Amino acid sequence: MAQAWDKIHDIFAGKTGDNIQIRGWIHRTRSSGKLIFLQVRDATGIIQVTIEKGNIPDTEFQAAKKALIESSVALKGKTIKDKRAPGGWEIHPESFTVINYADIFPITEQHSTEVLLDHRHLWLRSQQLTQIMKIKSSLLQIIREWFAQHNFFETTPSVITTNAAEGGATAFTFKYFDQKAFLSQTAQMYLEALIFSLERVWCLTPSFRAEKSRTRRHLIEYSHLEAEEAWLDNNQNIALQEDLVSYVCQKISATCASSLKALGSNPLNLQKITPPFPKITYKEAILRLQKKGFDATWGDDFGVLHEKALTEDEEKPLFITHFPQEIKAFYMELSPDGKTVECSDMLAPQGYGEIIGGSQRSEDISSMKIRLKKQGAKLENYEWFFDLRRFGSIPHSGFGMGIERLLCWITQQEHIRDMTPFPRLVRRAYP
Amino acid sequence: MAQAWDKIHDIFAGKTGDNIQIRGWIHRTRSSGKLIFLQVRDATGIIQVTIEKGNIPDTEFQAAKKALIESSVALKGKTIKDKRAPGGWEIHPESFTVINYADIFPITEQHSTEVLLDHRHLWLRSQQLTQIMKIKSSLLQIIREWFAQHNFFETTPSVITTNAAEGGATAFTFKYFDQKAFLSQTAQMYLEALIFSLERVWCLTPSFRAEKSRTRRHLIEYSHLEAEEAWLDNNQNIALQEDLVSYVCQKISATCASSLKALGSNPLNLQKITPPFPKITYKEAILRLQKKGFDATWGDDFGVLHEKALTEDEEKPLFITHFPQEIKAFYMELSPDGKTVECSDMLAPQGYGEIIGGSQRSEDISSMKIRLKKQGAKLENYEWFFDLRRFGSIPHSGFGMGIERLLCWITQQEHIRDMTPFPRLVRRAYP
Repeated sequence: MAQAWDKIHDIFAGKTGDNIQIRGWIHRTRSSGKLIFLQVRDATGIIQVTIEKGNIPDTEFQAAKKALIESSVALKGKTIKDKRAPGGWEIHPESFTVINYADIFPITEQHSTEVLLDHRHLWLRSQQLTQIMKIKSSLLQIIREWFAQHNFFETTPSVITTNAAEGGATAFTFKYFDQKAFLSQTAQMYLEALIFSLERVWCLTPSFRAEKSRTRRHLIEYSHLEAEEAWLDNNQNIALQEDLVSYVCQKISATCASSLKALGSNPLNLQKITPPFPKITYKEAILRLQKKGFDATWGDDFGVLHEKALTEDEEKPLFITHFPQEIKAFYMELSPDGKTVECSDMLAPQGYGEIIGGSQRSEDISSMKIRLKKQGAKLENYEWFFDLRRFGSIPHSGFGMGIERLLCWITQQEHIRDMTPFPRLVRRAYP
Repeated sequence: MAQAWDKIHDIFAGKTGDNIQIRGWIHRTRSSGKLIFLQVRDATGIIQVTIEKGNIPDTEFQAAKKALIESSVALKGKTIKDKRAPGGWEIHPESFTVINYADIFPITEQHSTEVLLDHRHLWLRSQQLTQIMKIKSSLLQIIREWFAQHNFFETTPSVITTNAAEGGATAFTFKYFDQKAFLSQTAQMYLEALIFSLERVWCLTPSFRAEKSRTRRHLIEYSHLEAEEAWLDNNQNIALQEDLVSYVCQKISATCASSLKALGSNPLNLQKITPPFPKITYKEAILRLQKKGFDATWGDDFGVLHEKALTEDEEKPLFITHFPQEIKAFYMELSPDGKTVECSDMLAPQGYGEIIGGSQRSEDISSMKIRLKKQGAKLENYEWFFDLRRFGSIPHSGFGMGIERLLCWITQQEHIRDMTPFPRLVRRAYP
């Protein structure tokens, strides 16, 4: 295997000739008498391969004929221009080796969602999931690029925690040696501790919600991107989120255009995502919902249907700010009106749901204690967090983004479970 | 706060003058009559600030005098060249504001390890931890750069799992709705599934070991970098690891020289880390240990003392290959000798311990079943994993790296707990 193997996208890009060698998997196969028509896949693309009896040793022709889809193969031959072939080229092999004969592939054109999830380890080879995973990889790279450009330090807070920042009711608990611990729902409190030395920090960790919600927008485990910034108020925090999401959309539309198109997402729509995004207050959102016939009143939290109604006419993400303090977390800074908090939710357009939640953080220990007590929280667990306000407190803000939510909107896919290779759902933690 | 604030490192780099504005935290303070000497810290450095009574309003002078260390402050003034000052410059303020008066800082020069861990949220402000966290941020960036250059896709496998890849004995378990689940010890099996579409994949996820080991080299939760590569055998896998670690060392020594020096690590030593690294077999390692007086025999696994003895004279990391199959995981490819497996451990020099474990993966279902049965594993949990061998199996290899181990060696620090902001130890999950 020391020889140089060609990659399929290099052929499409012009690396053609009589001495091409590729290896990969049979994506499709059919044969008619003396001809075998294959589509062979590697990580970079799919190319048509036509094998004619007589052009290769007969044992190899028979092997090629016998090999089912998903068999691994290696082949050597010449490229032929063919307008009808995907990518404009096909290969005529002079040698063909089956590395591993696949069993009969268990996934057919007719399949239930459950079958696909049971065979997730194989279904990951589908073009849909492959394109999504490629875009996700680019997305993460682009996000990190943005953070580096904005002088943020990446940090690694632990996901095992004894603090339930957003209340313990929806946290997974487990026995941690001689004590009880939670799986983290947010790294925010830890990020807050780190701004006193690093000022701007971010992290990407799995977060966990033990909620029995079975919507197309929820995962039990998801990739949670969080950032925390010293010296920023809520408006500056909003501007930062706007800049990040716009940057990501511009870059993704440029670098992943073909993958996006393959998924039915128009890269041109992503190019339109530029600051400023529309912004309305929670109060205005309630009015908008009432106009649309919802029975919504002050104090209601928004569900999937509300989010859809609020954003169905938007082309850009929509910020909703200044929610009532009662329906938001204890650590959010109270607004001057005494009723709302300095926060924002960024909703994706077209009902794709909340992609970012952010807020300015309260510096007022006694107000936070009052709100925590209402939740029935044990105050002693938060003493270290209050310490951050006792030793050189400063104005600061931060936000958390659901990577899979963002990706689902960007790729215009139906279900968030397809945004991660092995989704964790209420009834599924296998494979 | 719309005005432009200067950063301390920009002053040291030449941005000086009469109209400098900085904000940050009091790192040190002392006063003698009409003079107050402060060191003020921001995320980029520490600068000396000398306040003379009469040069600023008296209320501000009194405020500066009253403010204890870790108080947050903002100041405006002129820079003065001073050879004795760290960085060569100090600031003489004309205005000085205390943003938040800190309480008496609970950490003094005399402190026990337990006190430092109890106050981790504050101790993170120490120069030692700040420099380590900065290097870690760079380290992660450099690693990602290398993966992007080598055409790897980043993926996000879930850490909630129903498979215990390396045996269930040391996994945390918890109730996942109506079933039992584990916290992942490795993402390897998931990465293996992904190579059939993406060929080269990597991920960075927390991994968890419920082991009561109390050494300076173990964390209960650590940052686990894993990679999996289609079409590579064990030797090619080793070459890849060598290239990655060398690249990281070169780049870190160039980009983090001052932080490294502050921690007592010589960047020049990191520049010497270039391929090839020394390589010995497990058999040779046993002989080396026997020569050093260890009572080591075939079949023994290596502990901290063994690893130290094996590497104490090395300047570069040392590969140990071909361990007996009995002491390695079921998924490792058997060597032609029938006794050992195609694997490697990369040990850091000077006893810093194993930083990478890698292997070629077995494609032989029946051999893996035999080894799993010996461990008492439930074979039905591995059926999906065996499927990867039934549908277009190919030679492949991969490795896993402990980020905190690597960082501990690079920064030449004593204890791995300081490599992560909030370490999880056997008796500690707080703060």
